[in-house]
Amino acid sequence: MNGKERFIAAAFGREVDEVPVWMMRQAGRTLPEYRALKDKYTFWELCHSPELAAEVTLQPVRRFPLDGAVIFSDILVIPVAMGIEVDFTPAPVMGRTIDNAADVEGLLVVDPERDLGFVGSAIRNVVGELGDQCAVLGFSGAPYTLACYMVDGMGAKGFVKTRAMMHQEPELFGALLDRLTDAVGDYLEMQIDAGVSAFQIFDTWAGDLYPSIFRAVVQPRVTRLFERLQRRGVPGIYYINNVSHLLEDAAACGSQVMGIDWRLPLARVREVLPHRPVQGNLDPLALFAPPEYIREQVFEMLDATGGRGHIANLGHGLTPTTPISGIEAFVGAVKEWRAGP
Amino acid sequence: MNGKERFIAAAFGREVDEVPVWMMRQAGRTLPEYRALKDKYTFWELCHSPELAAEVTLQPVRRFPLDGAVIFSDILVIPVAMGIEVDFTPAPVMGRTIDNAADVEGLLVVDPERDLGFVGSAIRNVVGELGDQCAVLGFSGAPYTLACYMVDGMGAKGFVKTRAMMHQEPELFGALLDRLTDAVGDYLEMQIDAGVSAFQIFDTWAGDLYPSIFRAVVQPRVTRLFERLQRRGVPGIYYINNVSHLLEDAAACGSQVMGIDWRLPLARVREVLPHRPVQGNLDPLALFAPPEYIREQVFEMLDATGGRGHIANLGHGLTPTTPISGIEAFVGAVKEWRAGP
Repeated sequence: MNGKERFIAAAFGREVDEVPVWMMRQAGRTLPEYRALKDKYTFWELCHSPELAAEVTLQPVRRFPLDGAVIFSDILVIPVAMGIEVDFTPAPVMGRTIDNAADVEGLLVVDPERDLGFVGSAIRNVVGELGDQCAVLGFSGAPYTLACYMVDGMGAKGFVKTRAMMHQEPELFGALLDRLTDAVGDYLEMQIDAGVSAFQIFDTWAGDLYPSIFRAVVQPRVTRLFERLQRRGVPGIYYINNVSHLLEDAAACGSQVMGIDWRLPLARVREVLPHRPVQGNLDPLALFAPPEYIREQVFEMLDATGGRGHIANLGHGLTPTTPISGIEAFVGAVKEWRAGP
Repeated sequence: MNGKERFIAAAFGREVDEVPVWMMRQAGRTLPEYRALKDKYTFWELCHSPELAAEVTLQPVRRFPLDGAVIFSDILVIPVAMGIEVDFTPAPVMGRTIDNAADVEGLLVVDPERDLGFVGSAIRNVVGELGDQCAVLGFSGAPYTLACYMVDGMGAKGFVKTRAMMHQEPELFGALLDRLTDAVGDYLEMQIDAGVSAFQIFDTWAGDLYPSIFRAVVQPRVTRLFERLQRRGVPGIYYINNVSHLLEDAAACGSQVMGIDWRLPLARVREVLPHRPVQGNLDPLALFAPPEYIREQVFEMLDATGGRGHIANLGHGLTPTTPISGIEAFVGAVKEWRAGP
């Protein structure tokens, strides 16, 4: 099997020759060849150039035997396309915040080809380069997570302003989420047209919500997205950081694959969702440990699923200071593992 | 029943006339009378003066019919007593970080009466003032959560340096935790001597850990603390923010009461731990909603436990910008609720 076949088979729960693997944030973080580019270009310059974004996407694939190549970009391209400037300091800071109905109505309608065509071009470049060696993966921020940045104006602890607005002005907040849901759907549709083999929706901050409000506010919109997009035959992954208390509600959103963060052992996920393909979930910080420890942890993780319907990954984005030896140990252990008799 | 009797009875799962209530961070956040003091004194000045700390502790008790009065202080008094300066900017920033064995060995041994006697004096002042009107509550940061600040040097997103050290140098990290465990135990023992009716250990950041590492690193130390302290007949509350995936492992640490954050419905907690007294857990951000909504949420929360073995609280600290009408609606709804027939 080639990487693309392996990835797609695992996403649909079919048999594989070995467990496919990629790492969230594998592109554009730890590698010296990325830092060399980063010395010459700003983060946004790298994102906006289809050639440079493709190059950064390919860097980890050249070093490690990965089955997925996630396109180098940022979830905040959508607020930018809606007319809100984003500055990286290096943490993102928005040029203005969403405070009232006029702010929501004033958001620009996103035309993905016109406003985000550079991502489509980068995808075509990477697909042209890799063929079927890897599944090329698209992604977007989820409506709720994007709203967090747009209301709070930055990556604020607990996103207090956003969560207060959700309770205080539920209609206003719902209108913002509906606008974002349309934009995310159009954007991912464009990525599918450009040739991605799978896509991931990152709902990094939805894990701050309790189940009844997740069901009322987030679930209907994310469900609509997966219904619309997976109709194209391309599998989608729904990742919530801190999903433990929301596992069944997140599963009800209908993604082909459930992305699981590092806190929740996959053995427990399989108890609750026995037949659902999963992605994850080694603690990214475990890559700072000695290789033998990493190998044990990877084997334990794969034993929990028997390697079936499992896309191996970290449980959160790769940390910038991760030693390369830790990454090698992680990917190597996934490739070394074989299901028990 | 007076507030103290009500609080203690609920903590031991005994019958109560009404559900006792307090709020994490009820002292020193939202009230105008606190802000007036804060204009005259720094945060550390308020903490270090037994008279001022007592006054801030009493402010919310004068306004709302609370059953618990939590002493106004900060979890970072322990690192300070160990010789590490802490500045509030307003977020805490440590004067230096723990990087190696020499740093751990160089930490001062804490003598609570000498180094933290101002907290004991504040407790005696509050107990003298309140009598049995309220349970006076002591607290401390948990060893792991204190270590997060001491290793990362500030309230850093994900505490990457701390978690990397835990994996990379487990013995060094364990030595730091052992030092902290002794200091926390001595400090809470002094609070018990000063007259607190109950105490809470805040493990705000332990929810970042996955279960097997929680069991290996955190559980033995926290268990030792509750064994030592509850021998005094004073009930202890163990609060982990984001406890969902650790519920059973946290329960195994042996606290009399489990503090639950807002993400996990108490109905689910009762399924897993049917007989364990609980504390919590309304979303602090729900206090921004209209009073009728707050009342519904409080009633749903109390219906889930039937009000037995339940200390009503928020699921996290009170947010500084919370409207006072929201606090009144929360406390009022707890006091209004009665168990169904």
